[in-house]
Amino acid sequence: MNRRITEADIDDLAEGSAFLGTGGGGDPYVGALLCKSTIKRHGPVEVMSLADLPDDAEVLCVAAFGAPTVLIEKLISVEDVDVAARRLERLLGFTANVVIAAEIGGVNSTLPVAYAAMRRLPVLDADGIGRAFPNLQMTTFNIAGVPACPMVLANEHGECVILETADTLKAESLARPLVAAMGASAMIAGYRMNGATAKRAVVDGSLSAAMAIGAAVNAVQSATPAVDRLLAILRATPLYGAAFRLFEGKVVDVERRTTGGFVFGHCEVAALKGSDRVRVDFQNENLVVKRGETVLAIVPDLITMVDTESGRAIPTESLRYGQRVSVIGCRAPAALRTEAALKIVSPAQFGLSEPFTPIEIINSRLPDDTV
Amino acid sequence: MNRRITEADIDDLAEGSAFLGTGGGGDPYVGALLCKSTIKRHGPVEVMSLADLPDDAEVLCVAAFGAPTVLIEKLISVEDVDVAARRLERLLGFTANVVIAAEIGGVNSTLPVAYAAMRRLPVLDADGIGRAFPNLQMTTFNIAGVPACPMVLANEHGECVILETADTLKAESLARPLVAAMGASAMIAGYRMNGATAKRAVVDGSLSAAMAIGAAVNAVQSATPAVDRLLAILRATPLYGAAFRLFEGKVVDVERRTTGGFVFGHCEVAALKGSDRVRVDFQNENLVVKRGETVLAIVPDLITMVDTESGRAIPTESLRYGQRVSVIGCRAPAALRTEAALKIVSPAQFGLSEPFTPIEIINSRLPDDTV
Repeated sequence: MNRRITEADIDDLAEGSAFLGTGGGGDPYVGALLCKSTIKRHGPVEVMSLADLPDDAEVLCVAAFGAPTVLIEKLISVEDVDVAARRLERLLGFTANVVIAAEIGGVNSTLPVAYAAMRRLPVLDADGIGRAFPNLQMTTFNIAGVPACPMVLANEHGECVILETADTLKAESLARPLVAAMGASAMIAGYRMNGATAKRAVVDGSLSAAMAIGAAVNAVQSATPAVDRLLAILRATPLYGAAFRLFEGKVVDVERRTTGGFVFGHCEVAALKGSDRVRVDFQNENLVVKRGETVLAIVPDLITMVDTESGRAIPTESLRYGQRVSVIGCRAPAALRTEAALKIVSPAQFGLSEPFTPIEIINSRLPDDTV
Repeated sequence: MNRRITEADIDDLAEGSAFLGTGGGGDPYVGALLCKSTIKRHGPVEVMSLADLPDDAEVLCVAAFGAPTVLIEKLISVEDVDVAARRLERLLGFTANVVIAAEIGGVNSTLPVAYAAMRRLPVLDADGIGRAFPNLQMTTFNIAGVPACPMVLANEHGECVILETADTLKAESLARPLVAAMGASAMIAGYRMNGATAKRAVVDGSLSAAMAIGAAVNAVQSATPAVDRLLAILRATPLYGAAFRLFEGKVVDVERRTTGGFVFGHCEVAALKGSDRVRVDFQNENLVVKRGETVLAIVPDLITMVDTESGRAIPTESLRYGQRVSVIGCRAPAALRTEAALKIVSPAQFGLSEPFTPIEIINSRLPDDTV
C-alpha cells in the first residue's frame, strides 16, 4: 500500500470503512469530506505500520461517539476532537506520537486520519476492533486489558467531561446518557497506551485493509461485477479471509428507532423471484442475518448490505424500501473470536439468544482462495 | 455561638438544617449519624467566621447530589466525599484550607461538617444558598459568577467524573443523567474559590443560624409551644427575619414521584375544622403554598411543613396522610432576592407561572420583632 494517505485515497478509505462499518459507524461520506478538507489544508498523512511503532510511542485513540443517525445530522469537527485529545494529553502529561482509530468503520476510520493531518502526526495502520461496534467496551483494547479511562468527551460547545473508572463497561454506561445530554454526539479521546501495549492490543493492518476493500469497490472500470470484486478482495485480505454472498434481493421492510443513544431495528430482504427472504437485525451495526429461524451469519462476524449494482455498502440509516441489495458476510478478525473476546462481543452481549457460530462453519465451505 | 461543633451540637444542626431544607436536601438524620461518628473519631470541628477567612484561603465546597428519596436509602459516605475532594484538589493543584456547604439544608449541612472533621479543617459559617435548592446552578456562588466547574462527581465504586463547562446550568444538565447512571446519587466537589471570592459569593452566618433554629426547636423543656419557638428564632435571625405560620391542619393528600433525578409532587393540608385547605407543591424542596389560587408564599422564600406538636420539619419524603402539620413560611436571605438572583431562582425557574412576591408583602404585615 501507499505509505501516505492523500486526498485521492480518501474515497477508497471511506468506501472500505462503510463496508467494515457493517451498517453502522456513521456515514463515511461525512468523514470523507472532513478528511479531504483537512488533508488539503495540512497535507497528507503518513501511515505507520505496527511493526514500525516504537515501544515507547504515545498512541492516541480518538473517535466520534453517538448514534449514527445523529452523526450524519450533526457534522463532526476535527476541532472538537482536538479539544478532547489535548485535554487527555494535558490530564495525563503526555504528547501523542501517533493516532489510532478506535474502530475501522464509518466515520471513525476517517476522523482519526483527519485529526492526524491536523496534528501532523502519523496514523497507525491498525484499529481497536477491525470493524465497527456500538459500545465503548467492545474493543480489542479492552479485550487485551487496556482501560478506556481516563476518557475525555468533548462537544461543539467546548464542554469536556472526563470519565475515570477502571471498569470500561461502566465507562460505557456513564458515557451513553452523558452524550445524550451533550447533544447526542461527542468526540472522545481515551484508551491511552504506549507502543508496546498497542502491539498486543490492536487489530493490525485494518486501515490498509479498509483502503484496499474500498479500492476494489470503487474500481468501476473493471469488467468484474462489483460484488464479485468485493468478495475477491475480502477473501484475499488475511484479516477477513472468508466472505460469502449470503442473499440477494430487494429491501421490503425497514424498521428503525433511535433510543438510548443507539439505532435499533431490522430490515427484511426478499428475493426478486419466489418467496425466499432474510431478515437482518441491527443495533447501530448489523448483528445477525437469518432465513426464518436459521442463522446465516452472526456477530462478531461481519454482515454488510451492499447495493447489488455498485457494491457500495448501505448504512442502516440509508436503507430504503425497494433497494436492490446483496447481504455480504465475512469472517471477523481472529482477535474478536477468542474466548476472552467472546465474553465482550458475543451475540449474547447484544441481547441475541443464538450462540456465535463462525460464518465459514455455518456456510459449510471455505472459498478456495481463503487465506 | 460556640466556635467548635461537637457531637452534642449535631442534633441542633440537623434539626435546623431540616427546617432550612424546606422539605428537601435529604434526611438530616442520616447526615447527623455520619457527622457524629466522624466527629467521635476525628474530634470537633472549628467554625470559621466569614470575617476571619483569609483572602487567599482555598475554600472547598462539597455536597451530596441526587434525589432526596435516594439519599435516604443509599447511605452517604465521607470516604466518597474524600474521593471527589482529593480529585478536585489534585486536578487543580490546591490544598483546601476550609470546607463550605453548598446548601444549608438536609444532609448537605452535616456532610461538610463531617468531611471537615475527617480532614481536620475548619468549616465556614456560611453556605451557597441559605436554604436548600434542587439544582447545581441555584447557588449564590453562581449568582456571584463563580463557576461550578471543574466539578468532580464520585460514587461508592470509586468512580470519578469530572465536568468542565463554563456554563453552570449546563453542568447541571450533564450531572443529572450522569448521577442516575452512577447509582442515583454521588458526592460532588466543585465551585472552587478563594477567600476573597467567597466573601462576595456566600450566605454569611447560615451554619450558626441553622444551629440556632435547631436549638430552638429542640428546647423541649421550654413552656413555649414548639412552633412559637421556631417563629421567634426565625424572626430573631437577621438572615431570615420575617416568618409566618401560614396554615395549620392535617395532611389529607400526598403525591410524590421520583423522576429525572428529582422528587416532584404536592401535599394538601386541610384545617382540622371547616373546609379551609392549602396545597404545597414541591420539586425536592417546597416551592409554593396556595389557598385555592392565592399564593401564600413562593420560592425563593422558604416554605417548610413542621409537625405542629414538636415543631420538627417534615421532609417531603416523610409526609404521610393524617399528620398534624403547620406550614411555616419565612423570608429568603437577601442574596436570593436580588434581580441577578431571581434570574436563577425565581418561581419561573421551577416551572411555576406565579411571579415572586416577597412573603412579608403577601402577608401584608411584618412581625414587630423583624430585624
